[in-house]
Amino acid sequence: MYLHVQRLINEIVPDEPDPAAANALQEGLGGQFGEMRTMMQYLFQSMNFRGPAGKPYRDLLQGIGTEEISHVELIGTTIAWLLDGSPRYNGKKTDPLDTPGAGGATPLSIALDHSNIHHYLVASQGALPVDAAGNPWSGTYVYNSGNLVLDLLYNLMLESTGRLQKCRIYEMTDNKTARSTISYLIVRDQAHENAYARALETLGVDWGKVLPIPKTNAEKFPEVKKLLDLGLQSKQYSFDLTGASEAGKIFRGMSPSKDGTELDATEQAPAGVPITIAEERFEEFSPGLDPELLALIQATADIEMAEVLPVFGPIPPSDPT
Amino acid sequence: MYLHVQRLINEIVPDEPDPAAANALQEGLGGQFGEMRTMMQYLFQSMNFRGPAGKPYRDLLQGIGTEEISHVELIGTTIAWLLDGSPRYNGKKTDPLDTPGAGGATPLSIALDHSNIHHYLVASQGALPVDAAGNPWSGTYVYNSGNLVLDLLYNLMLESTGRLQKCRIYEMTDNKTARSTISYLIVRDQAHENAYARALETLGVDWGKVLPIPKTNAEKFPEVKKLLDLGLQSKQYSFDLTGASEAGKIFRGMSPSKDGTELDATEQAPAGVPITIAEERFEEFSPGLDPELLALIQATADIEMAEVLPVFGPIPPSDPT
Amino acid sequence: MYLHVQRLINEIVPDEPDPAAANALQEGLGGQFGEMRTMMQYLFQSMNFRGPAGKPYRDLLQGIGTEEISHVELIGTTIAWLLDGSPRYNGKKTDPLDTPGAGGATPLSIALDHSNIHHYLVASQGALPVDAAGNPWSGTYVYNSGNLVLDLLYNLMLESTGRLQKCRIYEMTDNKTARSTISYLIVRDQAHENAYARALETLGVDWGKVLPIPKTNAEKFPEVKKLLDLGLQSKQYSFDLTGASEAGKIFRGMSPSKDGTELDATEQAPAGVPITIAEERFEEFSPGLDPELLALIQATADIEMAEVLPVFGPIPPSDPT
Amino acid sequence: MYLHVQRLINEIVPDEPDPAAANALQEGLGGQFGEMRTMMQYLFQSMNFRGPAGKPYRDLLQGIGTEEISHVELIGTTIAWLLDGSPRYNGKKTDPLDTPGAGGATPLSIALDHSNIHHYLVASQGALPVDAAGNPWSGTYVYNSGNLVLDLLYNLMLESTGRLQKCRIYEMTDNKTARSTISYLIVRDQAHENAYARALETLGVDWGKVLPIPKTNAEKFPEVKKLLDLGLQSKQYSFDLTGASEAGKIFRGMSPSKDGTELDATEQAPAGVPITIAEERFEEFSPGLDPELLALIQATADIEMAEVLPVFGPIPPSDPT
Amino acid sequence: MYLHVQRLINEIVPDEPDPAAANALQEGLGGQFGEMRTMMQYLFQSMNFRGPAGKPYRDLLQGIGTEEISHVELIGTTIAWLLDGSPRYNGKKTDPLDTPGAGGATPLSIALDHSNIHHYLVASQGALPVDAAGNPWSGTYVYNSGNLVLDLLYNLMLESTGRLQKCRIYEMTDNKTARSTISYLIVRDQAHENAYARALETLGVDWGKVLPIPKTNAEKFPEVKKLLDLGLQSKQYSFDLTGASEAGKIFRGMSPSKDGTELDATEQAPAGVPITIAEERFEEFSPGLDPELLALIQATADIEMAEVLPVFGPIPPSDPT
Amino acid sequence: MYLHVQRLINEIVPDEPDPAAANALQEGLGGQFGEMRTMMQYLFQSMNFRGPAGKPYRDLLQGIGTEEISHVELIGTTIAWLLDGSPRYNGKKTDPLDTPGAGGATPLSIALDHSNIHHYLVASQGALPVDAAGNPWSGTYVYNSGNLVLDLLYNLMLESTGRLQKCRIYEMTDNKTARSTISYLIVRDQAHENAYARALETLGVDWGKVLPIPKTNAEKFPEVKKLLDLGLQSKQYSFDLTGASEAGKIFRGMSPSKDGTELDATEQAPAGVPITIAEERFEEFSPGLDPELLALIQATADIEMAEVLPVFGPIPPSDPT
Repeated sequence: MYLHVQRLINEIVPDEPDPAAANALQEGLGGQFGEMRTMMQYLFQSMNFRGPAGKPYRDLLQGIGTEEISHVELIGTTIAWLLDGSPRYNGKKTDPLDTPGAGGATPLSIALDHSNIHHYLVASQGALPVDAAGNPWSGTYVYNSGNLVLDLLYNLMLESTGRLQKCRIYEMTDNKTARSTISYLIVRDQAHENAYARALETLGVDWGKVLPIPKTNAEKFPEVKKLLDLGLQSKQYSFDLTGASEAGKIFRGMSPSKDGTELDATEQAPAGVPITIAEERFEEFSPGLDPELLALIQATADIEMAEVLPVFGPIPPSDPT
Repeated sequence: MYLHVQRLINEIVPDEPDPAAANALQEGLGGQFGEMRTMMQYLFQSMNFRGPAGKPYRDLLQGIGTEEISHVELIGTTIAWLLDGSPRYNGKKTDPLDTPGAGGATPLSIALDHSNIHHYLVASQGALPVDAAGNPWSGTYVYNSGNLVLDLLYNLMLESTGRLQKCRIYEMTDNKTARSTISYLIVRDQAHENAYARALETLGVDWGKVLPIPKTNAEKFPEVKKLLDLGLQSKQYSFDLTGASEAGKIFRGMSPSKDGTELDATEQAPAGVPITIAEERFEEFSPGLDPELLALIQATADIEMAEVLPVFGPIPPSDPT
Repeated sequence: MYLHVQRLINEIVPDEPDPAAANALQEGLGGQFGEMRTMMQYLFQSMNFRGPAGKPYRDLLQGIGTEEISHVELIGTTIAWLLDGSPRYNGKKTDPLDTPGAGGATPLSIALDHSNIHHYLVASQGALPVDAAGNPWSGTYVYNSGNLVLDLLYNLMLESTGRLQKCRIYEMTDNKTARSTISYLIVRDQAHENAYARALETLGVDWGKVLPIPKTNAEKFPEVKKLLDLGLQSKQYSFDLTGASEAGKIFRGMSPSKDGTELDATEQAPAGVPITIAEERFEEFSPGLDPELLALIQATADIEMAEVLPVFGPIPPSDPT
Repeated sequence: MYLHVQRLINEIVPDEPDPAAANALQEGLGGQFGEMRTMMQYLFQSMNFRGPAGKPYRDLLQGIGTEEISHVELIGTTIAWLLDGSPRYNGKKTDPLDTPGAGGATPLSIALDHSNIHHYLVASQGALPVDAAGNPWSGTYVYNSGNLVLDLLYNLMLESTGRLQKCRIYEMTDNKTARSTISYLIVRDQAHENAYARALETLGVDWGKVLPIPKTNAEKFPEVKKLLDLGLQSKQYSFDLTGASEAGKIFRGMSPSKDGTELDATEQAPAGVPITIAEERFEEFSPGLDPELLALIQATADIEMAEVLPVFGPIPPSDPT
Repeated sequence: MYLHVQRLINEIVPDEPDPAAANALQEGLGGQFGEMRTMMQYLFQSMNFRGPAGKPYRDLLQGIGTEEISHVELIGTTIAWLLDGSPRYNGKKTDPLDTPGAGGATPLSIALDHSNIHHYLVASQGALPVDAAGNPWSGTYVYNSGNLVLDLLYNLMLESTGRLQKCRIYEMTDNKTARSTISYLIVRDQAHENAYARALETLGVDWGKVLPIPKTNAEKFPEVKKLLDLGLQSKQYSFDLTGASEAGKIFRGMSPSKDGTELDATEQAPAGVPITIAEERFEEFSPGLDPELLALIQATADIEMAEVLPVFGPIPPSDPT
Repeated sequence: MYLHVQRLINEIVPDEPDPAAANALQEGLGGQFGEMRTMMQYLFQSMNFRGPAGKPYRDLLQGIGTEEISHVELIGTTIAWLLDGSPRYNGKKTDPLDTPGAGGATPLSIALDHSNIHHYLVASQGALPVDAAGNPWSGTYVYNSGNLVLDLLYNLMLESTGRLQKCRIYEMTDNKTARSTISYLIVRDQAHENAYARALETLGVDWGKVLPIPKTNAEKFPEVKKLLDLGLQSKQYSFDLTGASEAGKIFRGMSPSKDGTELDATEQAPAGVPITIAEERFEEFSPGLDPELLALIQATADIEMAEVLPVFGPIPPSDPT
C-alpha cells in the first residue's frame, strides 16, 4: 500500500520556459529507460518476487521502486514548468494572463514548429507519457525474468543507461529548470547503480574499475558535482513507513563506484519541497471554466473541510536529509 | 512524494491455482480500463493540474491516483497467486517442491494450452503488464485534456467501464482468490464513480437515475454485497500523509448512486494486511540460485541491519477501517 | 459525401452461435488484408488522387471503396451474430432470456477458453476492430504511393490476398452464418481483382493465365459456386448516387480471370436485405438499462417523429440485382 | 449499405499551401479524437447495438457515423490541398508545372525540415492516416462497451475533446484553407455534443451549465461565428436514404448547450460542393505515367460510357440546406 | 557484405507435426529475446561501433551477429517443420497429398483451436516474425547505447535471458524436432554468454560463481548434455570469410562459466547440413499453381543454367567441426 | 548458413555531416519499404518456401535476401557517417577531438532541433532501426502468403515502392555521402524489380510498357546514370558460396524494363570496399572508456591471435565485378 505527501522529492529551479528542453526531458519520463519504466519494472519485480530468504533484495527493489514514483512526479512537473506559458514567452513574463486568441488571433502558433505539437494540442502545456521522439510508453519495456541474478543485472544496465541518457540531455540544454532535475536524477541513478551493483557483489561479482557507467568527469557537470559533494549518490532511502525494510542489509559497505564513500540506508525519505498548482491557460481552455462554473468551484473550495484522520503520522517536523 | 507500507490494501482469499482466471484478471491490471491506466491517468492529471482555486479537485485526483497504485499491487499479487504452482496443481497441493524437469520431463507443458504462454515463458508464473488478450499496456491510454469538466467526465466513464469489465470477469470464474480481489475492486470503482460524479455535481450536473453504471443487482454478486453492506462504495481515503488533502470538500453529501448512503472522506487509509513472499519455482529457474549463491543470500539476510529512521511515523496501532 | 440505407449488402444465413468462427472472421474485418483496410486504403487513394485525366480510375477506386464500407458492416454484423448468445448456447436456443449470473453464477465462463476473451469482456458479444490474432487495426496498413501503376498493382495484390485468406477461413468452418458472408466476400474480392487487373490491362499489361489468385476449384466451395453462377464476380456497382461515376470506362470487356464472362458496371447498387437490431444481453449489462431507464427509452421510441426530408430519393421500389 | 455522392460536405476555401497547418490538421483526421475514430466508433456501435426498443438511439449513432465518413473525406482533402505544391511555393503560384529535379536538383528539399517528412516521402503531398505527431491510427481507439449509458457518455466526451483540439488548432494557424474546414468541424462537433447530451437527457441527466465543452467565446473565432449564426450547431442530418431513421425522436427540443436554439433533425443531408481532382506532381512521380501510358489513359477516358442505372435517385435539384 | 551457403547450421531431427510446440518456438524466433533480436542488435552494434582500438570487440559482435542470422534460419525452418502437415496429421503421415477441402469440407479446422491461427490463415503453415503470444517483432527491441561496457552488459543479459526462455520451452515439449533446435540454441546461447562475460573480464570484471545464467543441471536436459560433452558452449566460430576477424583475442582462456573448459575461436564455421524444400500444401493454395502454371515452372527448372562464378571458394570438402 | 566479409558492398563517398539527410535515409533502412524489410521478407519467404520444383524461384529469393543484409549494412553505415561529428561541425572539420561539455557546456545542443533527437540521445550519432518519422520497424511489415504468384507480385511492388521513395530522397538532398548510397540502391532496386518481373514473365505475364516503376529520366539523376551505364540494373549476384543457386534459370533474357539490356546472373558477388571503424565521441560517452579501461583494451588488441581456420576460402584475389 502506498501513501502520498504533498511535497516534491527535490527542488525545481525556476527559469524561462523552454519547450525544446521539455521535449528532451520526456525521454527521462516516458522513454524506454525513463522513470515510468523503472517505476513499473521494480513494482512488478517486487510483486512477483520469489524466495522468502531474499527479502532484503525484495525490499531493495520495493524501496527504489517507490522512489521512482516520486521521480515520475518530479520530472513530469519539471516538463510542465518548461512548457507552461511558452507560447507567449518573450524573455520575461510580462502580461501572462491577457486574453489570448481574440478575434481570430493565433496564440498557439508556436506549436507548429517547436517541441512535440501534442504538448499544446493534447496536453495543454503539460507532460505526456511519451518519449522525446513521441513514442508512447509501452508495457513491453518492463523486464521481470524471475531469475534474481538476471533481474539485478538488467536493473544495473537500466539505471546506467538512464544515467547515460540524462548526461546527454544535460549536454543539450543549460536551462536551469531542466538542469536542476536532470542533475538530481543523474546522481540518484548512480545511487541505484550502486544498489544493484552492490547486490551482485553480495552474490560474488567483483566489478573492478568499470563502475560507474558512464564514466563522467564531475568538473564537466557543475550542478551534478554539488550533489555528489553531498554524498547523494551513496544514500538509499527506504521509503518504507513502518521500518520493515531490510534493504540496508545489502546497501552498506564501500561504494562499488570506488569513489571512497560508504553506502548508507539509514534514512526513510528526504524532506522534499512544497508543490504548487499551475495557473490557468485560457488559450488551452484549461481548466476551461466560465464565471458561473468558477463561482461553483470557489464555493466548494471555501467549505470548511472535515479533517481527514492522519493514521500514518504528521508532516515531518524537520528536514532529515 | 510517495511512501510505502509493506501491507496489501485488501485481503486475498486463498484458493486453487487457476491460470485462466489469472489471465482474465490481467484486463483489470494492464487493460485499457485497468488499474495501471487509472493510476497513470490520475498521476498525470495531478501533475498537470491547472487552477489553484481547484485544489480540492486536484487533491481528489491525487488521492484516488495514490489508491490505484495499491490496486496495481493488489491485483498483480492476485494474478501471481493464481498462477503460482499451477503447472503441477492437481486438486490439492501435494509435493509442491519436488524436482521438476528431471531427465527430459516436461513440467511446464501446461503453458502450451492454458492462459497466456508468457505467464510461464516470460513472467515465471507472475503478473505481466498486459491485458487479457496479451496486448502490452500503452501510454496512449492516458487521457489528460487539461479541461476540468472533460477530465472529470472521462474519469467517470473510465471508472464505470472498469467496473463493468470487472462485473463481467466476476461472471467468468468462481475461484475465490480471483473473486476476493475482483469484488473489492468493483466496490472501490463505484466509490470512484461516486467521486467523479459528485465533482461534476458541484459544477451543476444532476445525474438523475443513471448511476451507478453498470446497474447491478447486489444479490447476484454475494461477495460484492458484503462489501457494500460495509459502505465501502461511499468512502474515499485521502492516502495523504500530512493532512493537507482537501478532497473532502467534494466527497461529501448524499451519494450520486442514490443508494441512500452519505459520502465520507474522513479516513487516511485502510489498515491493510501483511504481504508474503512467494516460494521458489525451480522449473522456472526462479530465483535461480544454486547452493553456493543461496549461502551468500542467507549470509546477507542474517546481518543485523541498522534500523532505518522512520520520519513519517510508526505502523498504525490499530485498524482504522 | 456518403449516405446510408438501413439494409445489409447481402443476406446472412442463420445458424448456431460459433465464437471460434467469429474469431476467424475477425481477420476479414480488422486484419491486415481485411475490409477495414480496403475501405480506408481506397478512401485515401480517392482523396489523394492526382491527374484529372484519370477520373475513370479515381471513380473505380471510389466505388470499390464505398462498397468496402458496406462489407465492413456486413462482416461486423456476421461476427456479432456468431457471438450473440454463445455463452448459453447448447445446440438449440432454449430460454434465451432467463436471468444470468444469479447468486454468484458464472454465465460468462465460456470466455475463458473460447475465441478472443475480449469478445465477452470488452465487446459485449460483438465485433472488434482487431484481427484473428487479436492485433488492433493499424493506420500503417494503408498504402497510397500516389503512383497510379503502383497503387493498382498493390490493390490487385491486396484483393487477392484477402480472397486467399477468406478461402482458408472457408476451409476452417462449415457454420452457415460464417460461410454465407465468407462466400459472398470471396466472390466480391474476385470482382475487385478483376477491376484492378483490368485497369492495368488498359495500361498495357497482359496477365496471361495467372488470374484469378488464388486458383480455386469452384466445386470445392459449393456456396461460392452458386454466386459465381450468378456472375457476381464480374459485376461492379457504382455506389454513386448521381450517375457521375466513369468507372465503367475501365470495368468492361472480357474478364481478366479468363472465365468467359464479360465485365459489367451498369448497376448502381444491389437491393440489400433489412437489418435487425440484436437482443439485450443481461450478463453483459447491455444495453444495461433498469426498468426506470427502460421506461424513458420507451417514451422516446413512442414519439411520433417529424419525418426527415428525403433529398436523394425514395427506397428502391424493386430489387435491381 | 452506403452510397456516395461526388460532392464534399462543405466548401474548402483556397489559400496558400501550408505544410505546418496540414500537419496540425492530421490530428483531426487520424488522431485519437479525430474523424477516422468517430467514424469507426459509431460504425461499430451501430453494428453491435443491442435492444430493439432503442432504435432511435441506434439511428442517431448511425446517422452521425455516416456524417463522419464525409468528415474524413473533407479533412483529408483539406490536408491534401495544404500540402499540394508546397515544395515550390513562393508566395504566388507561378510556373506550377515546370520540370522538377532536372540534373541533380533538389525539388523536395522542403521535406527535410517541414511538417511530417512522410507527407513528401510516402504520401506524395497527400493526407496520411496518422495524427499530428506521426502516430498511425489504431483500432484500440474504438470504444464500444455495449452499455448504452456508457457509450453515450463516452461519445459526448469524444466529441467535446475533438472540438477542444480543433479550437486549439484554430489558434495555431490563420491559413484560410485550414480554418474553413476546422471552423466547420468545430460547429459540427458541437452538434454531435448536443446529440449525445440530449440522448442522455432523455435518460434523466440534467447538464446544468457545463455545456458546451469547451466553453468558447464566439467573438474570438470569427469563421466559427458565421456558422453558429446559421444554426449549424443545432441541426443533425439523417444521412439516411430511405427515411427510416428515427434519430429525430431524440434530436429535438431545446439545445443542451443552452444557447436558445432548438434542435432540428428534419433534413436528410446538406447539398455539398463539387470535388475536383488534384494536378500531377512530377517530382513525386505521381501519377507517374510517361507519354505512352498517358495516351492509354486518355483513350480510356474518351470512351463513351454505358450509363449506370441510378436506383436511389437523381442528383438533388436544389440546395436543401 | 554477407554470403550464404545452402546448408542449415545444425540438424533438425524429424518428428510428428506439433503446432503448440511450433508456437512456443516463435518466442525464440520473433520474441523480445529471440534470434531476430540478437541478430539485429549485434548488426547495429557492429555498424555503429566506435573506437578503432576496440576492433577485437567489434569483430566479436560481428561474428556472433552473423551466427544469429543462421539461427533465425534454423529456428524458422524448425517452426515450419512443426507446422507443416499438422492439419491432417493423425499419428502417422498417411496420404499426405490427397485433395483437401473437396465439396465444402473443412481441412483447416485445426486452426480454430491450436497454436496461433495466423500460422494457417496468414503463413501457410510456416514461421511468422512474431513471438509466442502473437506480438510482432519490433525495432524498439534493439539496444545499442554506443557505450562499450553497457552494450556488453546488455548482451550478456540478453543471451542469458534467451537461454532462460529456451530452457523453459524445453520443459514444455518433448517433441524431438522442437528439442533438437532448442537444445542446440541453449548451448550456443551459453557460448555467447561466455563471449560477453569474457569481454567484460578483459575490462576487469570478475564474475565469481554467478555464471552461467540460468544455473542448470545438465542431467535434466539429456539432449543438451550431449552437446555440452562436445564442448559447443566454449567454441565461437568467426563466420568471417577472409580471416580478418580478431575476435579470438577476446574469446580465449578459461571459460567464465567455470566448467573447466577453455574458450576456442579457431574455427571459421560448422559444416552444416543440407536444406530441403517443403512440399506443396493444396489446402493453403501454396504455392498455388494450376497445371498450366506448373508446366511453366517445370520448363524453367529444366533449363541448363549458366554456372555462377564462385569467387569466395568451393563447398567445404569435409566437415571441419 | 551465412558468412561475412569485412567489406561494404559499395563505396560511400565522403562529404560533410548532415543529420537531416541521415534522417531521410532512415526510411530506406527501417521504413516500411526499406532494406530491413526486404531482407526479412525474403528470408522468411525462403525458409517457408513450398514446392521443390520451384527451386530456381527459392534461390532467387534467397540470393536477393542475402544481398539485402549487405544493403542494411551499407545504408546503416551511411547514416552513421552522416551523423558522426555533426554536433560540432561548422563547414570544415576543424578540431574534431577537443573536449566537449567542459564546465557545463552544451556540446549536444544540435539534438534539440535537428533530425531525430534519438540519433544523439539514444544512438550515439549512429543509425537506428526506425523510419524517417521515427516509427520503429515492425514484424507486421513482412509479407509471406505462401502463394508463389502473390509473393512475386508483392515483391515487385515492394521493390518499386522502395525505389520510388529513394528517388524522392534523392530529390531532398545533394549531400554526396547520402547520394552515393541512395543512387546505388535505386539501381539495385531496379535489378530486383527486374528479377521479380522476370519471374512473373516465366509464368506468363507480359508487362508491356509499365516497367520500371517509377518511370525516371536518367538525365535527372546523374549519379544514378553512371551506374546504369555500367549495367548494374541488369545484374543479379548469387551471393551463394557453393555454386548451388539456380536463380540464373530465371534471371536471364531481355530485361523486363525494356531498356535493351540482357539480364546476367553469372557472378557470385561484387568485390566491395574495406570497412573502417568510427572514431570515439566523448560527448556521447562512446565507447566511454577511461584511461584504465583503455589500457586493458589495448592489451587485448595487442595479443597475437591464433589464426582462424578459413573453411570457405580466402579473400578474393581480384575484383570480380
